[in-house]
Amino acid sequence: MKCRICREKAIIGLPQHNLALCADHFDNWMLKRAAKAIDEFKMFTKDSKILVAVSGGKDSLALWDILTRLGYNAHGLYINLGIEENDYSNESEELSRTFANRIGKKLYVVNVKEIHGMSIPDKAYSKKRKTCSVCGVTKRYYMNKTAREGNFDVIVTGHNLDDQAAALLGNLLYWKFDYLAKGAPYSPPLWKGEFAKAKPLILCTEKENTVYCLLQGIDYIQKECPYSEGATFLRWKHILNEIEENSPGAKQAFYLGYVKYIDIFKARNIDMPDSRCEICDTPSWNEVCSFCALWDLNK
Amino acid sequence: MKCRICREKAIIGLPQHNLALCADHFDNWMLKRAAKAIDEFKMFTKDSKILVAVSGGKDSLALWDILTRLGYNAHGLYINLGIEENDYSNESEELSRTFANRIGKKLYVVNVKEIHGMSIPDKAYSKKRKTCSVCGVTKRYYMNKTAREGNFDVIVTGHNLDDQAAALLGNLLYWKFDYLAKGAPYSPPLWKGEFAKAKPLILCTEKENTVYCLLQGIDYIQKECPYSEGATFLRWKHILNEIEENSPGAKQAFYLGYVKYIDIFKARNIDMPDSRCEICDTPSWNEVCSFCALWDLNK
Repeated sequence: MKCRICREKAIIGLPQHNLALCADHFDNWMLKRAAKAIDEFKMFTKDSKILVAVSGGKDSLALWDILTRLGYNAHGLYINLGIEENDYSNESEELSRTFANRIGKKLYVVNVKEIHGMSIPDKAYSKKRKTCSVCGVTKRYYMNKTAREGNFDVIVTGHNLDDQAAALLGNLLYWKFDYLAKGAPYSPPLWKGEFAKAKPLILCTEKENTVYCLLQGIDYIQKECPYSEGATFLRWKHILNEIEENSPGAKQAFYLGYVKYIDIFKARNIDMPDSRCEICDTPSWNEVCSFCALWDLNK
Repeated sequence: MKCRICREKAIIGLPQHNLALCADHFDNWMLKRAAKAIDEFKMFTKDSKILVAVSGGKDSLALWDILTRLGYNAHGLYINLGIEENDYSNESEELSRTFANRIGKKLYVVNVKEIHGMSIPDKAYSKKRKTCSVCGVTKRYYMNKTAREGNFDVIVTGHNLDDQAAALLGNLLYWKFDYLAKGAPYSPPLWKGEFAKAKPLILCTEKENTVYCLLQGIDYIQKECPYSEGATFLRWKHILNEIEENSPGAKQAFYLGYVKYIDIFKARNIDMPDSRCEICDTPSWNEVCSFCALWDLNK
């Protein structure tokens, strides 16, 4: 297998693009893929102040690296969830800090246990709720808070094509309209002055992000979150990999087709709440938002 | 495994309904499933004149049998496509005729080769078109013609849940809106006086229809059509079977969820053509309809 561009030995085959590339040309190609997504979905510009949600995993570190190399002004946010199993949270914080130093960029760090006196798993247990749901509410809150307080223009996350396509398949199989309405690679600010949300790596696969990190020598956490929802989501990924193997490009066609027609899933308009949380003053459908209710916060 | 109703030995497990049934109660249950679909989607009434599109396979013969036993006025239509491989067409015609005699109902028979001097495969070859596409256009034409000339109120087909869910998955993966707009279990007449189209077995699986035929001693053609599109469609079926095995009921939830929301796929309205084919006078977007063009018909 030879590099399509220089005919040197290829290190990766990309059958969905009818392509094989050497290390240098693959590296270059990854930058172009991210740039293409940013451009095509009008995600942000060189003037934007960007907050990268960093988990310490391959996708978010690859994203932060790529944005920095492309000349974007991107800071990081790491949220320590207090997961002690496998030293998961501390190790991923350490890797995130090391990476931030390496590229010389600021990393905001939020430590849930320090702030609330309880880790995400402990909170979930005490509230008899699913860990992933408690984690989602909490991460969203601190991402939004950091972006708002730091006057960021956009929060970016490392979601890759495999993630997006798998979520899409699961949501279609059960017709989860609330999620189907929200799977776009770019969501504009909900109101003037608010930040946007974007996923610049939606044209890149899991495998491509992994290879990118390996080639760039980026040290990322290889453990899975011990609370990972796992089974079901992995099933959708597995199914799509099977389909992709028989029809290279199917995954991208599936996700991008959806993005093209996403408006059909927005029939029931997603309104902005016109009230605000009594406690934290963020827009909320209820008097107290789900985050403040979860963490039993008071005025 | 015991029958949920009489505690006798069950002959079939239906995990998606958390049910197991003996032969008698399964038979009864099948009639109820068809009745439920007919009722829920307001397909037709005891006064309706029904044309069953019969292929000689398990689904269409089970359908015709069930409708007859439920007291509906259902005639059959068999279209002989002239497929000689494996004696496919003649054997399926024979089985259809035998079944019609058994239930004492009229079977209309159309023989493509007798009318047009050429079989479906030969026509496809001579026109350099796919056999399945030539077959589809031709069958649709003769179903419509028979229904129109015989003043039928509705054409019914034996599509089962597996067929419908597999087609849906394939159409969603590639966002084929033309097909996604048309997958409902019931399509009302396109204009007043025209017939409707309905699929009364959409709540029944392939396996259930097979077991129904075995129990009723219905002799159906077990060969697959030698031109069957096969591979891709079977892949979607296989994937859905995997999903169903892990989450019994997923297939039905997937298809019925789609039916509930099908209007979102009709955004680009499917208009009725306002012109008619110069040759056969059926509604057509072009001067000559696809059927008359295919078979080189003249005025």
